[in-house]
Amino acid sequence: MLGLGVVGSGVARILSEKAESYARELGCPLELSRVVVRDTGKDRAYAIEPARLTTDAASVLEDPEIELIVEVMGGEEPAHQYIRDALGAGKYVITANKEVMAKHGASLLTLAQERKLDVLYEASVGGGIPIIAPLKRDLLANEIVALSAVINGTTNYILTAMSRGEGDFDEALAKAQALGYAEADPANDIEGTDAAYKLAILASLAFHGEVRPDQVYCEGIGGLTNRDFRYARELGYAIKLVALARRDAEGGLRLRVHPAMLPEGEPLAKVDGVLNAVEVEGDLLGRTLFEGQGAGAMPTTSAVVADLLDAAHSVVSGGRERLIWRGEAALRIVSMDDLRTRYYLRMTVTDRPGVLAQIARVLGEAEISIATVLQKATDERVAELVIMTHEAQEASMQRALAELRPLPEIAEIGTFLRVEG
Amino acid sequence: MLGLGVVGSGVARILSEKAESYARELGCPLELSRVVVRDTGKDRAYAIEPARLTTDAASVLEDPEIELIVEVMGGEEPAHQYIRDALGAGKYVITANKEVMAKHGASLLTLAQERKLDVLYEASVGGGIPIIAPLKRDLLANEIVALSAVINGTTNYILTAMSRGEGDFDEALAKAQALGYAEADPANDIEGTDAAYKLAILASLAFHGEVRPDQVYCEGIGGLTNRDFRYARELGYAIKLVALARRDAEGGLRLRVHPAMLPEGEPLAKVDGVLNAVEVEGDLLGRTLFEGQGAGAMPTTSAVVADLLDAAHSVVSGGRERLIWRGEAALRIVSMDDLRTRYYLRMTVTDRPGVLAQIARVLGEAEISIATVLQKATDERVAELVIMTHEAQEASMQRALAELRPLPEIAEIGTFLRVEG
Repeated sequence: MLGLGVVGSGVARILSEKAESYARELGCPLELSRVVVRDTGKDRAYAIEPARLTTDAASVLEDPEIELIVEVMGGEEPAHQYIRDALGAGKYVITANKEVMAKHGASLLTLAQERKLDVLYEASVGGGIPIIAPLKRDLLANEIVALSAVINGTTNYILTAMSRGEGDFDEALAKAQALGYAEADPANDIEGTDAAYKLAILASLAFHGEVRPDQVYCEGIGGLTNRDFRYARELGYAIKLVALARRDAEGGLRLRVHPAMLPEGEPLAKVDGVLNAVEVEGDLLGRTLFEGQGAGAMPTTSAVVADLLDAAHSVVSGGRERLIWRGEAALRIVSMDDLRTRYYLRMTVTDRPGVLAQIARVLGEAEISIATVLQKATDERVAELVIMTHEAQEASMQRALAELRPLPEIAEIGTFLRVEG
Repeated sequence: MLGLGVVGSGVARILSEKAESYARELGCPLELSRVVVRDTGKDRAYAIEPARLTTDAASVLEDPEIELIVEVMGGEEPAHQYIRDALGAGKYVITANKEVMAKHGASLLTLAQERKLDVLYEASVGGGIPIIAPLKRDLLANEIVALSAVINGTTNYILTAMSRGEGDFDEALAKAQALGYAEADPANDIEGTDAAYKLAILASLAFHGEVRPDQVYCEGIGGLTNRDFRYARELGYAIKLVALARRDAEGGLRLRVHPAMLPEGEPLAKVDGVLNAVEVEGDLLGRTLFEGQGAGAMPTTSAVVADLLDAAHSVVSGGRERLIWRGEAALRIVSMDDLRTRYYLRMTVTDRPGVLAQIARVLGEAEISIATVLQKATDERVAELVIMTHEAQEASMQRALAELRPLPEIAEIGTFLRVEG
């Protein structure tokens, strides 16, 4: 095992506690041979005999007695290189590393397949929720049409707290940090990067081709205010950071991570707190939802150990039976410009006659028609205007926004959200 | 393939339409060689060359060229015998047959394992929702604590319609029949038998031992009235036909299918219409929910074909890599008597002072304390009394009911429901 943090300690403990059950399952014992750590002297939550700890990764990766490598150290390098080295040395790899799988998944899986090995990565997306394996096996008869997910626990905790009136963005973030749901530097979660990594991993698998994280359009949740949540509720919506991948009629694939309004009745709208959920739409199956704990030591351990048992079965039986990577053709990624969806706009305007007419004119010229307007006076001279549009084209919407921003009657365009579902 | 009904026709069509994609997946073509039907001359929704149709099951089961048998004929016999014969002849079996798997799963899986074959049965529970495979593989690191499910689409359609005020039980059933969601003879669904079959299949897998359908305590939905749904909403609950399996602290397993009240916030309470959902509680993972279309030709076809591709991979690679049946020790099934839960009682009583006191006395003597009482006058002399209890023991509750029934002040005990969650 590479790494002995929260997940690594969980894996070590469970392998020890459940050794008997796992041996019965496999027909032979599954033994944690060595653990590579940075500091063998450090005090740890779960104590391992010092003799099993080492700082020398090469000695483990090259040890012919070791058949399975569990990578739970995180970060892109040296984890990525270690995984390549392990495959090169003929070992199966189990990893929880979303950054490595998002950036290098296609090449690692291709290498594993050439060597008749496997890289298993259930723990890299959605914690313990089984989603990678179902996409690989159970949904295989389907052509996947769309993936829709709430797959970042940190942001979902913050958005849920804000929607319940438990504080503004900064307060909710501070509370998430205090509870261990957000890191000291939360940028990766807040800006959507983490969700984009996970979407790239899921989309690569679902659409049979390499999707790189930089092909995912990405917006974070930083700009949202408590007023947006009040308006959303008034209009019958929840606000979630969604990760969406959809194949269009011409086979193009659009990938995006951004906050969005979802009708309250939608399954993803009800996924609250640190829960995660992935909805898969297949041509045969229709929509299927997988929901559970997206993070945490024990759920992630559950996924790592399931993969470990799966790979161990292959070692025992002498080989993998399945195709593990079907990166067929280059996927054609389409831009946001042609997206057609509905939009929510919250802006602060001068409270005088004619302002709404002027905004409506700009939108109308861009062929955007208005579905709902809420206007609230905030003080004598300023009003807050909330507009929901009918379906419109993203490029037109962006053009209209560029035209609205400099208007003297518009003090601020506070929030701009896509409305999905 | 044995059978060419709705699911069989779906499988035949999809195997033809997606032949190229599946061949790429497997590295060789997957060909539907022969189909056993009762009448080769019948007109069918999906036309198959007459030369592939036969009424002679033995000729197919004994054909050494055929490596996989798909059983979609339904019913206990001769389907069960055909599956045994297929395994005996060295063939993998894929089945959608819940009755056969509920009644004979353990012996069929044992036989398959002895022969290094497999019986795959994802389609037997929850239509296209992946739940069998996740239990076999993805949740394997966990000790399963409980299964909670809404797994009968017919009854869920009826209960959802009643909760929305779309008619009484008979009207909702008639509508379900008109839409093809309920059969002409709906007893199997309405009485809970279908859900009990599915729970026996899931519990056998989750708890590593044989669970027979007759070990599942079973009550149907026949007695519910629209008034129960109104009271449920007033109290903050939904009414669902639930299938529950839970291991108690002493390792005993309690299995039950009955209508129950669920708090509106519970995930299963929100599973509406013909949708199905299974919630699995594992010691590492916590609670994970799988939700989707529980029936229908295409979802079921999706599950059958996924299993078919899985088995075909094994044929191509020369064997199964995993333990498929771990029927370890006899499971100890515990009776309903020691169940502790809350209860809902709706009764018609004489509207005069002292009646509630008398009922409260009977309940109190059985150590059942009352949480909520709603009393509604229905006409001058009769009132409807709705009681929610605190947690109490099932045996005490049944004793109290037996004592209440003959009381002259109680005209009728209309509905008795357990309150879960």
